[in-house]
Amino acid sequence: MAPPASASQPIHDGDQFAAVDIGSNSFHMIVARYSLGQLQVIDRLRETVRMADGLDGKGGISIEARNRGLECLARFGQRIRNIPRLQVRALATNTVRQLSRPQDFLVPAEAALGRPIEVVSGREEARLIYLGVAKAQPPKAGQLRLVVDIGGGSTEFIIGRGMEPLERESLQAGCIASTRRFFPNGKLSRKRWQEAMTELGSEFQQFAGQYRALGWQEILGSSGTHKAIGEICAAMKLTKGAITAEALPKLRDQLLLANRIEDIDLPGLSKDRRPIIAGGVLILEAAFQALGLQRMFVSKAAMREGILHDMLGRGSENDPRDISVAAMTTRYGIDEVQAARVEATALRLFEQVRTVWSMDDDDARMLGWAARLHEVGLAIAHSQYHVHGAYVLENSDIAGFSRQEQQVLAALVRIHRRGIPKSAFDALPDRLLLTTRRKAVLLRLAVLLHRAHDATPIPTLDLLAHGEQLDLVVARDWIQARPLLRADLLGEPDPMRDLGVTFKPLVA
Amino acid sequence: MAPPASASQPIHDGDQFAAVDIGSNSFHMIVARYSLGQLQVIDRLRETVRMADGLDGKGGISIEARNRGLECLARFGQRIRNIPRLQVRALATNTVRQLSRPQDFLVPAEAALGRPIEVVSGREEARLIYLGVAKAQPPKAGQLRLVVDIGGGSTEFIIGRGMEPLERESLQAGCIASTRRFFPNGKLSRKRWQEAMTELGSEFQQFAGQYRALGWQEILGSSGTHKAIGEICAAMKLTKGAITAEALPKLRDQLLLANRIEDIDLPGLSKDRRPIIAGGVLILEAAFQALGLQRMFVSKAAMREGILHDMLGRGSENDPRDISVAAMTTRYGIDEVQAARVEATALRLFEQVRTVWSMDDDDARMLGWAARLHEVGLAIAHSQYHVHGAYVLENSDIAGFSRQEQQVLAALVRIHRRGIPKSAFDALPDRLLLTTRRKAVLLRLAVLLHRAHDATPIPTLDLLAHGEQLDLVVARDWIQARPLLRADLLGEPDPMRDLGVTFKPLVA
Repeated sequence: MAPPASASQPIHDGDQFAAVDIGSNSFHMIVARYSLGQLQVIDRLRETVRMADGLDGKGGISIEARNRGLECLARFGQRIRNIPRLQVRALATNTVRQLSRPQDFLVPAEAALGRPIEVVSGREEARLIYLGVAKAQPPKAGQLRLVVDIGGGSTEFIIGRGMEPLERESLQAGCIASTRRFFPNGKLSRKRWQEAMTELGSEFQQFAGQYRALGWQEILGSSGTHKAIGEICAAMKLTKGAITAEALPKLRDQLLLANRIEDIDLPGLSKDRRPIIAGGVLILEAAFQALGLQRMFVSKAAMREGILHDMLGRGSENDPRDISVAAMTTRYGIDEVQAARVEATALRLFEQVRTVWSMDDDDARMLGWAARLHEVGLAIAHSQYHVHGAYVLENSDIAGFSRQEQQVLAALVRIHRRGIPKSAFDALPDRLLLTTRRKAVLLRLAVLLHRAHDATPIPTLDLLAHGEQLDLVVARDWIQARPLLRADLLGEPDPMRDLGVTFKPLVA
Repeated sequence: MAPPASASQPIHDGDQFAAVDIGSNSFHMIVARYSLGQLQVIDRLRETVRMADGLDGKGGISIEARNRGLECLARFGQRIRNIPRLQVRALATNTVRQLSRPQDFLVPAEAALGRPIEVVSGREEARLIYLGVAKAQPPKAGQLRLVVDIGGGSTEFIIGRGMEPLERESLQAGCIASTRRFFPNGKLSRKRWQEAMTELGSEFQQFAGQYRALGWQEILGSSGTHKAIGEICAAMKLTKGAITAEALPKLRDQLLLANRIEDIDLPGLSKDRRPIIAGGVLILEAAFQALGLQRMFVSKAAMREGILHDMLGRGSENDPRDISVAAMTTRYGIDEVQAARVEATALRLFEQVRTVWSMDDDDARMLGWAARLHEVGLAIAHSQYHVHGAYVLENSDIAGFSRQEQQVLAALVRIHRRGIPKSAFDALPDRLLLTTRRKAVLLRLAVLLHRAHDATPIPTLDLLAHGEQLDLVVARDWIQARPLLRADLLGEPDPMRDLGVTFKPLVA
């Protein structure tokens, strides 16, 4: 299967784009058409899959939930069959993050959808939600906006200004998860509600102080839960559709008249939403309390719109990943000059093999970022710095990158020097193995050629690939004057073999 | 056994201090007397223990080498029996760093010496070497100085200005290790020498470019190897005791007239030094080549003098560890205001139990640093930030801290929130277990009390310890207004039990 999408080609009027949001409660897909510089939504699909319902709390998922997901993806897949590869992006969120063996779901899911699926972290999800809402309803200049998105498995809180998210938090509590956790067997009671509020409030403490200190001028809620609660508020004639600090306790009291979830009777509540509304109202009430909210409006946009707009940025001059890599370079004090030398050489080597090795602009970008970040671990310690760098890249929230993209970066940095541990690629899906190994080969060579960390330019070297055979041709005079480099090159065939490549340095 | 030394008491004329350097080739001890603001060396002991000779390359050490070390330490221990605990510091370097189970050596070694022994990283070793040399021969104002120290197991390279090391590198190659590695069975040959030069040169590449770019005005060599080579240069009438780029190849050619190490015949070479001189000359020649050195002078001072002077700084206003903690705070963008709140509360709690729990100023300092750094992992990611923070503290080169001190910090940060994994204390020596657990208890309480991350002051709370029973008394009104804090406190007895403490929150 092809690598994840990125719109690296110039965009033309009439091009179609699709974003798939594989959520914990529902799966969404929107298809948009590019026209006169704008994205025009031409199709929306939504199915209540309720994947989170199948989680067993130990990293497994029920066959029923899994199958509901696969069937939905097959239907979505049919709709986007004719949209070019780089114009579709499918992202999975909290429920897939909870799986101990995500590939067991992702491999058949990718087959059903016919596209690669990436997993994003809670904070990346938060960034995309903010972007989607901001594109649909641009904030007033200079104003701070709080966006809250209650998903099935997690809830995201973002403060932003303009198109820029400033704070992003993801709370491990969604409407399905919280309903199951706090009201097991479907039993409701005022006492249980109060205990749940305390537990949730405690979770909020980690960031509530910081959020309140930053503040906001407006509040938007962007999920199905918000939409439903806003509609109930309106149906109860409490508001005209906004959610307020006064309306919410009344709505909750009405909800708690029922002793069981199945008996909940709220005007305007759909049958579909009833099994999970208690958790949603609970999280929202806890959020209102912890953050001191007064009035929240409902936004119709959400992560799916964010994915769509983000896709246009990917591969362009405004790729959010470029900005993140630059920020890491600064934070960790990376030697940018050395990193730039390694990147330039890596990309020159890349160009010589890209056709034979079927690599594209996405591969080039990933190789470039790995080169820019390969010394990031030096900020921790020199000894084993490739291991520290991989740790940082694997565990950081890096805006714009999916989990898999971070795992590819981490793997490339982990093996850019020294031996190749068998576990280096454990985290990667099979479809990325070959291309990641090949990128690792190129990065190793570039790092090795610049090991002296000096400004001496590297002459153009011939790199020839025939399948997995790779020959590097160096001029006799040049290499003879460089005994250290020669020794390093002679040591490479071993680790290269572990990367599946038969490497031969040749002297011409 | 008492925690590691630090001179936290005021220093008086006549006070004695001792520094023990447990090296890979020899063990050194110096004893100094404080007089009129100066340290006056009153005794020096040196024994050729050759611990590195017993390393088996798999993390084990021969019984003979181990026993030579223990016997030497017993002799050293006798000399310092009457020096107060906080005025002795014993540090182990590369050979102990190589052991897979360092405690197997350290526990009997501490018993033999009668003092705690700490292990330092190569870069911390480099810092102390630079300090020792700089104190003995202060550099000219503004000048850059390169110091090279060839030990038995590792070689340190430091560039500094004044008392300040600017660059510190530790190369995993010492005179014993390199002699064994490159000349197995004691056989010498010109060809083998050249191959070894290439291999070593390759190791140098990682930092040679950077070092040359920074440059230096003078070069000092500070080890027994330098002293021996300087003496040979003088005896061969090549120089008056300096080591120069011209003299070194001549000395090496003379050395290589022998085909076996035991036949090496160099004027001025002691019998004791002969078995390891080949590795020493080899490393030095490789260093001259890689760094383009011309003329190096020999310094008599080394790490032992550095330990001595560092000890005076520890616990004072100029504690190098304070500077390192401040630097990490900046690099990782820690919220200093929150960290200061947690530190102040932790230290207030500490004062209430310090007598019953037999804790001292060293414990207070360590608790304070852990409080200042407890959120360091947030720079990587919010999720599991205590784990990321522990990773950073465990793996970073933090100037001024021994390995054990870093491990204590890492353990405290690891368990400042959430559950206590069984493995949390695996890295710590037994003698530090109880006191680290107790500090962890205090840090957890302080973090929990400030979990709201706001400026609301915490009232004085009574913390009462009776052995491992710990009661926290809070005012009824105060806690009733704080249901989240109350819930958090009610959750603490479980993790506290895992820390060996029976914790009870009481309402008065």
